[in-house]
Amino acid sequence: MIGVDAMGTDAGPGSLVKGAAMALKGGVTADIVFFGDEQVLRPLVAEEPVLSGAAIHHCDASVSMTDKPMHVLRRGRDTSMWKAIEAQKEGRVHAVVSGGNTGALMAVSRMQLGMIPGIDRPAVTALWPTPRGRVVVLDVGANVEATEHELVRFAIMGEAFFRALTGEKKPTVGLLNVGAEELKGHELIRTAARVLREADPDMTFKGFVEGNDISLGAVDVVVTDGFTGNIALKSAEGAARLVGGWIREALTGSLLSKIGALFMMADLKKLKQRIDPSTVNGGVFLGVNGVVVKSHGGADERGVSAAIGMAAGLVGKGFRKEVAETVALVFERAGKTLEAAE
Amino acid sequence: MIGVDAMGTDAGPGSLVKGAAMALKGGVTADIVFFGDEQVLRPLVAEEPVLSGAAIHHCDASVSMTDKPMHVLRRGRDTSMWKAIEAQKEGRVHAVVSGGNTGALMAVSRMQLGMIPGIDRPAVTALWPTPRGRVVVLDVGANVEATEHELVRFAIMGEAFFRALTGEKKPTVGLLNVGAEELKGHELIRTAARVLREADPDMTFKGFVEGNDISLGAVDVVVTDGFTGNIALKSAEGAARLVGGWIREALTGSLLSKIGALFMMADLKKLKQRIDPSTVNGGVFLGVNGVVVKSHGGADERGVSAAIGMAAGLVGKGFRKEVAETVALVFERAGKTLEAAE
Repeated sequence: MIGVDAMGTDAGPGSLVKGAAMALKGGVTADIVFFGDEQVLRPLVAEEPVLSGAAIHHCDASVSMTDKPMHVLRRGRDTSMWKAIEAQKEGRVHAVVSGGNTGALMAVSRMQLGMIPGIDRPAVTALWPTPRGRVVVLDVGANVEATEHELVRFAIMGEAFFRALTGEKKPTVGLLNVGAEELKGHELIRTAARVLREADPDMTFKGFVEGNDISLGAVDVVVTDGFTGNIALKSAEGAARLVGGWIREALTGSLLSKIGALFMMADLKKLKQRIDPSTVNGGVFLGVNGVVVKSHGGADERGVSAAIGMAAGLVGKGFRKEVAETVALVFERAGKTLEAAE
Repeated sequence: MIGVDAMGTDAGPGSLVKGAAMALKGGVTADIVFFGDEQVLRPLVAEEPVLSGAAIHHCDASVSMTDKPMHVLRRGRDTSMWKAIEAQKEGRVHAVVSGGNTGALMAVSRMQLGMIPGIDRPAVTALWPTPRGRVVVLDVGANVEATEHELVRFAIMGEAFFRALTGEKKPTVGLLNVGAEELKGHELIRTAARVLREADPDMTFKGFVEGNDISLGAVDVVVTDGFTGNIALKSAEGAARLVGGWIREALTGSLLSKIGALFMMADLKKLKQRIDPSTVNGGVFLGVNGVVVKSHGGADERGVSAAIGMAAGLVGKGFRKEVAETVALVFERAGKTLEAAE
């Protein structure tokens, strides 16, 4: 059972309903409950026969993109976001997908679901394509700064997340750093690398990686603070979009090219899908004791479908248990190393 | 007169000599002096008729990529890098291009050329393509951390640099930040933005920009610390390379696509040139009292040619004077604001 907070996005509730329908048509097996304004949602859901089994949980209010998290915590208990997370807390849904206000979603999730023991601050994941699959980057926005303590925990959670997401047993992990000859980054990152090696010898930790290693897929999990992670991924998105624009220009630059493009139709379609940012939509809140997937506020139905598919996959693969048990195991074995080193 | 430190790169002295030849053939008007091992350089230069007027300044030693800057300062006075910068100090060349060890080049440049009054720490620039031209990002590696004080100075120097590079009279400037709803980045960046607005009202300062704004060309000059700048640009490079690989696959994915690609030859060639990273090779050391351009250690002849072209352009447009005068002007007018605010 997946709860979809259908309100408070830039793209509107239609993209969430259509995205849920697309996910089910695409083979995702999950029951859906939409949280939001029933008058708005009812006709949208009725348009999609595949959603005939979906439920609508009416909520009187919704969180806006500009609401302060504290305001939502105090006065937002009638919002669709609050109600969706509350349903997870009470076991009525197993995961929540929301395209709403990230700060508020984080605050509401933390307050209602609590944190995994041993984790103080959550991290938000992002997926990015590589030549051999996908890489997970975290944190991408929950914390503008991260201590060595937090980076170590992001790495442990990120590895468990990748395992649950892909089934890969030994994901590789790297710490994002600069590669200039003399400056191997902040003291803090060097400390995090040292502690990680000592605390979790089972992890396939590859040490430092650089910005270009993200798209190269040099490791499965790239760990950094939320400030750097946000800027790295947005820089990569911008570059992909720039090159995408050049491709469009090349394909339509002349009559000959337009003719050539006709021959290439099938391969160009595949190329377009690969560049499509919606295939990597869906950020997971790691450390929160539940399954909360943040869909981009502007995501179209394909993006929402990807986020719902991810939520269903994580529920099916016991993601919450995987992360909690990994964290507990590392702490049991290396708690003293971790505490002494920090 | 441009000094080329021809030793100590990954790609070897051949790419520097060929790159210089390519620059001259491409219309750059400058006399070239190569600094390095004459026995190695003489035959390479002889292969290029366009370099018949070039001089070779023999040096017994060269700086390796692994040499510590301090070691080079103490014992590197016979290296090609030292000799090239010394020649600029003594007015025998007007700019130096080097593909060698960045940390050492920075240390040698600072020691011999000194800093512009008012600037404590240099910044390294990078160029990146946008739909409407090029954006300058700084710092990309000289300092892993930057205070608000330094960010403000990077912005003032970066704007002057862009003016000298392009002739654009009113370049726009932005501070790189995250765009998450609740977190508008570190306190430090907010302070830098406030000080910049007060101290330099003549600057077209656009406030905060995000990672994707780099490739979008939202501003002409993107200001950040060396850690974030390095990671942002390398992430963008990696993404551009990823999409480039997908394009190659699409063009060769099937017989039909290969036929299509033949029709598109001319436009694809243009596309390839646009994606070519050598077109944006050349990092300038801002704040150093001279013109020092760092070419990428692995740059091929096209990359070196771009760096030499940039050096020649900066000399021709009085870049050193432009930066020093801009800094002096801002400080004269706003010195008290700057000091009080920091």
